[in-house]
Amino acid sequence: MRMSELLKRSGMPLATVKYYLREGLLAPGEKVGATMADYGEEHVRRLALIRALTEVVGLPIAGVRTIVGLIDEPEADRFSTLGRAIEVLPPAVEADPDGDYPRARAALEEIGQLYDPGYAAVAQLERGLAAAESVGLPMGRERLHGYARHIMAIAEIDLAQLPGADTPRAVEYSVLGTAVYEPILAAMRRLAHQDLASRMLGGVAADRDR
Amino acid sequence: MRMSELLKRSGMPLATVKYYLREGLLAPGEKVGATMADYGEEHVRRLALIRALTEVVGLPIAGVRTIVGLIDEPEADRFSTLGRAIEVLPPAVEADPDGDYPRARAALEEIGQLYDPGYAAVAQLERGLAAAESVGLPMGRERLHGYARHIMAIAEIDLAQLPGADTPRAVEYSVLGTAVYEPILAAMRRLAHQDLASRMLGGVAADRDR
Repeated sequence: MRMSELLKRSGMPLATVKYYLREGLLAPGEKVGATMADYGEEHVRRLALIRALTEVVGLPIAGVRTIVGLIDEPEADRFSTLGRAIEVLPPAVEADPDGDYPRARAALEEIGQLYDPGYAAVAQLERGLAAAESVGLPMGRERLHGYARHIMAIAEIDLAQLPGADTPRAVEYSVLGTAVYEPILAAMRRLAHQDLASRMLGGVAADRDR
Repeated sequence: MRMSELLKRSGMPLATVKYYLREGLLAPGEKVGATMADYGEEHVRRLALIRALTEVVGLPIAGVRTIVGLIDEPEADRFSTLGRAIEVLPPAVEADPDGDYPRARAALEEIGQLYDPGYAAVAQLERGLAAAESVGLPMGRERLHGYARHIMAIAEIDLAQLPGADTPRAVEYSVLGTAVYEPILAAMRRLAHQDLASRMLGGVAADRDR
């Protein structure tokens, strides 16, 4: 397709698409003349991904560049490719492979999961556990095991839908699925609290035909 | 205790405590002289709550005022008191009781949960579901039911630890517990993904004695 068609399909202005071409986020089209190029479905798809990452996930261009780079030139180790892509997502927590994350380490050991201080989510967990402690609601053993069991089940649902791990689609799915389902899960937890509380305490729901 | 002791216990400077007194977030001490007042444990506790809400949860003073107000003067309906307190938390999504949230309504009906458009988490869920759709990962039926089952189990763990619902502590627990455990759960999900992926794809964990 010509550029005009690509603009129509992507819903983006020419200046934006040119910017992505210049930045190397979008591959050049196939030259079909001195000033004309031909674009394919992969261009439409890439623009949709960039839009999702910038507008929905809220990543800065540097983050988009990292993810697009991992899709176009994945590392030989698929596991670390996925890990590096996820680390681009907010919250921006710096991972330090030599750092010590005592609360996260103890929690992960307790539930029998991998502790890898080089993975940003470990620092994120440490920060969260410290915050819970500081407000007088430290993570107890029972809550930890209960959370871990159900979060693992949720993660299994997510991984069951992972496209073939060797495909560029796997990076896309992991990044977007991680990012867009976090707020959904948070909202669902609040709604589950409300649902349970309405049964315990009465309130709106008690008046309804359930 | 005297103000000097209260400052030591709370770790806050005098100007800050005076500000909270002036704003009505902290009750005045009991007068024991023309210029002296006596403070109790409830003052220490209140300052710790204010610190948790501002520094850990990141609420602006207006939000702290709403929550403190609901603790000091709860509505007759405990259920709606808790609901109003939770709505102060980020993300700031405006709830509209007359609004229409078609994706959230369909999802909640599908899983047999209360749909109350006046509750902010409904708008939050709607926004999340729309975002997932827009990046090409719409919530499927299987994922929805799986998520709902495990999120409900997590909510049950949370509610099991709710202090007597008639106490001011219940509002505190609900607000702080909702806020501080959201990032922990998000980090745990990312770590569960990593744990599962390391087993599927090899990588770091494969080299370790698990």
